[in-house]
Amino acid sequence: MTFKIGLLGLGTVGMGTAEILLDPRSRHPLLSEIEIYRVGVRSLDKPRPVQLPEALLTTDLESIVSDPNIDIVVEVIGGLEPARSLILKAIAHGKHVVTANKAVISRYGDEIYTAANQAGVYVMLEAAVGGGIPVIQPLKQALGVNRIHSVTGIVNGTTNYILSRMQTEGGEFGHILADAQQLGYAEADPTADVDGLDAADKIAILASLAFGGRIKLPEVYCEGISKVSAADIAYAEKLGFVIKLLAIAKRGLGEESKQSPLSVRVHPTLVPKTHPLASISGVYNAILVEGEPIGQVMFYGRGAGSGPTASAVVSDILNIAAVLKSTLNAQMLHPLLSCSHQDYCAIAPIDELVTRFYARFLTLDRPGVIGKLGTSFGNHNVSLESVVQTGIHNELAEIVVVTHDVREGNFRQALNEIRTLDTIDSIPSILRVL
Amino acid sequence: MTFKIGLLGLGTVGMGTAEILLDPRSRHPLLSEIEIYRVGVRSLDKPRPVQLPEALLTTDLESIVSDPNIDIVVEVIGGLEPARSLILKAIAHGKHVVTANKAVISRYGDEIYTAANQAGVYVMLEAAVGGGIPVIQPLKQALGVNRIHSVTGIVNGTTNYILSRMQTEGGEFGHILADAQQLGYAEADPTADVDGLDAADKIAILASLAFGGRIKLPEVYCEGISKVSAADIAYAEKLGFVIKLLAIAKRGLGEESKQSPLSVRVHPTLVPKTHPLASISGVYNAILVEGEPIGQVMFYGRGAGSGPTASAVVSDILNIAAVLKSTLNAQMLHPLLSCSHQDYCAIAPIDELVTRFYARFLTLDRPGVIGKLGTSFGNHNVSLESVVQTGIHNELAEIVVVTHDVREGNFRQALNEIRTLDTIDSIPSILRVL
Repeated sequence: MTFKIGLLGLGTVGMGTAEILLDPRSRHPLLSEIEIYRVGVRSLDKPRPVQLPEALLTTDLESIVSDPNIDIVVEVIGGLEPARSLILKAIAHGKHVVTANKAVISRYGDEIYTAANQAGVYVMLEAAVGGGIPVIQPLKQALGVNRIHSVTGIVNGTTNYILSRMQTEGGEFGHILADAQQLGYAEADPTADVDGLDAADKIAILASLAFGGRIKLPEVYCEGISKVSAADIAYAEKLGFVIKLLAIAKRGLGEESKQSPLSVRVHPTLVPKTHPLASISGVYNAILVEGEPIGQVMFYGRGAGSGPTASAVVSDILNIAAVLKSTLNAQMLHPLLSCSHQDYCAIAPIDELVTRFYARFLTLDRPGVIGKLGTSFGNHNVSLESVVQTGIHNELAEIVVVTHDVREGNFRQALNEIRTLDTIDSIPSILRVL
Repeated sequence: MTFKIGLLGLGTVGMGTAEILLDPRSRHPLLSEIEIYRVGVRSLDKPRPVQLPEALLTTDLESIVSDPNIDIVVEVIGGLEPARSLILKAIAHGKHVVTANKAVISRYGDEIYTAANQAGVYVMLEAAVGGGIPVIQPLKQALGVNRIHSVTGIVNGTTNYILSRMQTEGGEFGHILADAQQLGYAEADPTADVDGLDAADKIAILASLAFGGRIKLPEVYCEGISKVSAADIAYAEKLGFVIKLLAIAKRGLGEESKQSPLSVRVHPTLVPKTHPLASISGVYNAILVEGEPIGQVMFYGRGAGSGPTASAVVSDILNIAAVLKSTLNAQMLHPLLSCSHQDYCAIAPIDELVTRFYARFLTLDRPGVIGKLGTSFGNHNVSLESVVQTGIHNELAEIVVVTHDVREGNFRQALNEIRTLDTIDSIPSILRVL
């Protein structure tokens, strides 16, 4: 029995996928039963490092998703359209789908999975989060017996690379971003990465799997790293933290029903140096899952790149082929590989978040300033863990505050009051603390 | 549809398993279709924290494995017998089996999987390695598309706890072992842990899955941690290493065919501080898998304990239930969940290993000693990375040597020659370097 693949896209990931499928020796034996049947590309003439018979290539992607001989469509063209339409057409033609497209799944997952369940096909997406790191599959198959409390990830390699270099070199964001762009670690248009949008797509997908419900992407709170300064990294270091862009999905404390709101968010965060995520540096990704009774488990690896991402794509193909092979008269979809969520998770607004905060203030250098700060925080039930005057810059005193766990809404109200104090010059940084 | 479980054993892991199955809310919905049907225990009268209807309990374990109503037998009694016989009888009666028993699988895996394939049933073992950490399943399902180069793990929590404390406190092995025993982190008879036998069982299982062949346990080289001294930990620290008990399975360099010998071994190892495994401390476990094209991925979590291990056991139950549910008329076993290995992997003798070494010598304090050491190493093609005289103890000079990659047989021959030198007092430590 051979399973026929229609590959949409022959860019970095498509090429890596083809390389694995064309050279199956010393890999899982089932791979030798998987055949690249057609490949959709933008241009037939482009020189490519991978040798594929010319007859396989076509620029007519629509003809692939409707080809009756194809069992599995692999979408690795990226972007929203035509990827979304091609996925939906493939499903309508009864094809199983493997995709690496976090943007499409996080926005149109509802539409796509509803269609897939109706058509009785699988839509697999291991490559959408964490590159080659197996995290989607463990969430679906191994960790689901737990009551998941939280998923916390470093899921964007570009921002982790920039923050790691800021940490090591003491440089400023803009300078290191420019260098990362020259070195190819950041895109010419870095918005999706540095503003946290890519990480938001990914945490929406992870939250959906961890908490068994769909997630509305616009409800995911998202804050990027462009305002993180070298000064904050240095203060965080002194206080025992490193700054990481974390993507976090968390169930409300003590609330275990699926109806209780989740907190789903992306923001730069002070991470204690002893925390397992603190040592994840450079372009590496890691996802920490906490649940009952498993405790903490963490998955670590390269979060992007041709090889790792192709490994995830081909593992999805292999899983579909394995199920198809063992279930010729299947009654229903495999319940751990298919999507069984119909309902949306309730997501709490960011004001309801309970977390610690770090804030840096520039104030006039006068006696009583710390007292006034403390009073304003106290007026809004914000309890402080530490207040340190770290130095004098341009005749302004710099004060760094770390709070205990507080409701974000209360903290914001306290800041609004503090901004009206005549001794306060500015608040250059506000960051959350894990 | 309900799947009926026969649970053999109600110790720590059995109790944790029952706790999850008896309280399925906010876990995977399929768990509510899994029923604890009978529980085999040694004594009916023992008080237990988990409430199970008395009628479920029996001391007649044989009657469980032959009960026609039971779909899945869960073996969590541990030890070799009667565990092995009960597993084989369950298989003979057409039951699927979930086990946490690394000792039985590493010794009798051949017999058990041959029987399981003949009977058309699954034998699942996620809990046998790494507690709750999903590592068996990713090796079977996600990573198999890669050409695996190596699996390197910290897979024994007791020894990692002891080495971590030796590192932090500077204490000696014997003292910290005694304290670990008092605190419950080490068994009264610590042999299986400190001599590396438990880790050897686990790496045999991981190697089998990673390299697609069976492993003969006596061919796994095994060296424990009882000879690691505080002095070595201190020198390693100065040289930029920490000492960990690693379990390693590695394909020969440049040899990709399944017939080329593997190196499979357990020994204390100097791990560079920058290596991802260096920061795994205390009772945590981590398994690092390297392959092509995925690069490095690492799995991290608690390697033992009731909750984590039960999470792994129940995830195996869930996977079997999912397959059974979706494949009422299955043609064959699911190829990624069943065992497809019939052949044994060739394992190279330890003399063939190519690795770096660390060795500590006590010598007479005379000029020319380092020259003689260097000459002897050179005579056997052992190239040195560093030779440092670290101090004088009781009128003996202490010299620490780190080699480049050498064939272990050559290194041993050089040591034999060095032992005959009249300026050499003793060689208190020989350790491999990652």
